Amino acid sequence: MNQAINKQVLLARRPQGAPRNDDFRMVDAPMPLAGEGELLLRNLYLSLDPYMRGRMNDARGSYAPPYALNAPPGGGTVARVLTSYHDGFAEGDLVVVPDGGWQSFVVSDGTGLRHLMPDMSEPSQALGILGMTGFTAWWGLTKIGRPQAGDTLVVSAAAGAVGSVVGQIGRLLGCRVVGIAGGADKCRHVAQDLGFDACVDYRAHDFAGQLAQETNAAIDIYFENVGGAVRDAVWPLLNNDARVPVCGLVSGYNGAIAGERVGIHEFLTTLIVKRIRLEGFLNADHLEEFPTFERQVRGWLDDRQLLVSETIVEGLDKAPAAFIGLLEGNYTGKLIVKLPE
Amino acid sequence: MNQAINKQVLLARRPQGAPRNDDFRMVDAPMPLAGEGELLLRNLYLSLDPYMRGRMNDARGSYAPPYALNAPPGGGTVARVLTSYHDGFAEGDLVVVPDGGWQSFVVSDGTGLRHLMPDMSEPSQALGILGMTGFTAWWGLTKIGRPQAGDTLVVSAAAGAVGSVVGQIGRLLGCRVVGIAGGADKCRHVAQDLGFDACVDYRAHDFAGQLAQETNAAIDIYFENVGGAVRDAVWPLLNNDARVPVCGLVSGYNGAIAGERVGIHEFLTTLIVKRIRLEGFLNADHLEEFPTFERQVRGWLDDRQLLVSETIVEGLDKAPAAFIGLLEGNYTGKLIVKLPE
Repeated sequence: MNQAINKQVLLARRPQGAPRNDDFRMVDAPMPLAGEGELLLRNLYLSLDPYMRGRMNDARGSYAPPYALNAPPGGGTVARVLTSYHDGFAEGDLVVVPDGGWQSFVVSDGTGLRHLMPDMSEPSQALGILGMTGFTAWWGLTKIGRPQAGDTLVVSAAAGAVGSVVGQIGRLLGCRVVGIAGGADKCRHVAQDLGFDACVDYRAHDFAGQLAQETNAAIDIYFENVGGAVRDAVWPLLNNDARVPVCGLVSGYNGAIAGERVGIHEFLTTLIVKRIRLEGFLNADHLEEFPTFERQVRGWLDDRQLLVSETIVEGLDKAPAAFIGLLEGNYTGKLIVKLPE
Repeated sequence: MNQAINKQVLLARRPQGAPRNDDFRMVDAPMPLAGEGELLLRNLYLSLDPYMRGRMNDARGSYAPPYALNAPPGGGTVARVLTSYHDGFAEGDLVVVPDGGWQSFVVSDGTGLRHLMPDMSEPSQALGILGMTGFTAWWGLTKIGRPQAGDTLVVSAAAGAVGSVVGQIGRLLGCRVVGIAGGADKCRHVAQDLGFDACVDYRAHDFAGQLAQETNAAIDIYFENVGGAVRDAVWPLLNNDARVPVCGLVSGYNGAIAGERVGIHEFLTTLIVKRIRLEGFLNADHLEEFPTFERQVRGWLDDRQLLVSETIVEGLDKAPAAFIGLLEGNYTGKLIVKLPE
């Protein structure tokens, strides 16, 4: 491979609704150069996540600036240090780069960089179950959801990167866990492979009735990844004092809000009547707890109490199609692009 | 007064939308009789509260059963003990009755009954600032709102029973407090008499702009009593990590939801982006903290740091019109019906 070229996927224009292939453009850019105190990194794995869709909009006032046009979108990567002029990192080190981006090489001044945990069986896990994805699941569930043994936990997008971890941790903490996913294959995966107590297909004709049955119409924690019609079905089944970590609303990320029928007044009336606590959160606010998360989840992994669910796509040129498919719900587990070394 | 008659206001039919006079009926019922272990009480003050509107509906699955037809609606009262066959209470005692109801006399077995605090300047305060109203304000603000000195607190229905207390306590705890109320007279009352830092009239043409200006577009706590268009205006002005105690949604209690334009998807997207905590609550869940509340608020009252805002209506026959007016926003402070002794 010619190291003089930095392959990049650029955001060519801001998607309208669902992103399309020609919203992106693949280019050969010049190699970036590491200066004093900096590092040249080769990206090995790129994390693809639904939140990226929001940053492709020209959204003002969000928690992070929009991605620039004609530049590679950001995104977490696992990278190898090629050249280091930084005391904290040596050539050959494997690191997690918070915004390594949709490209082969990146220069960093070390901000936010961290070494991979030693003896990680697969470096890609540093983006998934042992990375921001797992941390999001762990933080939202334990800190906002506050699970008690015996609680009924419902997880939407249960086959997805975050949902698959939330539900497994919920089981380890003694909850009865009911997943919601789209289609019979995903539901089988959630119930059989991931070991949820049950999984309900939101595309099923009698979705709301099945959900009521599997949860006994008594949900203590709803981990919200989806919104829309899924939330509409969950809402009347919440118990008094239910906790609702609001992690994502993927049903609306492409603009159209799938199936939402309940208005805010009805929604909030239930919130009062049932004394519900609803809380939005961003993992980046809570990084001081990352080491605690890492220890606990790594322990469970080493004890083989957690299944790692990943989809690996090979080649940076596959990133646009993979991202489009992610928002369509085509994958299970953590979606990662593997770049050539 | 003829003690052989128990004057009652009955719920004659369930209101459709805004309640009307002929949804109620005044009757002379026979006197109730106190049996072994019971008390005969004469109601002196009756609390009228917006939540009663919900209980006039035939609503299933709410936190309390609907009021029965052809019976007096419930409602907190201050009463005098006329006859006691109960060890805890003596003839002449003044007590707070959780569900004394829209009537002159009531028999109780003592459940939920409590004596008035000694030396209360006005017994009606046991229904308002030192009763469930004040407790609701205090609990929601301090436990969910968690005010810090310097926080900007916005209170809707600021001239109302709960709102007037929330804002005053917020000031005592060091917040900058901006009220929202309907009309120039109420706003003057809130800012001048109650001492809020500012009050914005939600009927004003430039309501949203004024609210943004008075709050510097940076609200840390929003105490929600109203919903609808008021919440729509508040929502984009919330700070990161804002707390939203959801106490009531009076704009929708009569069925039509005043002015609500924002959908849940947009609402919850902001919740995530701003990491907002939203929590419904009911005072009755937290009665173990009532003594703490009583001590603190009584202390402030004794030090003349809180203004008691009440509207007293004379005569049980005025209760229907007063209640109708309450939902129309015609009163300031705690609305109480005074019954003849």
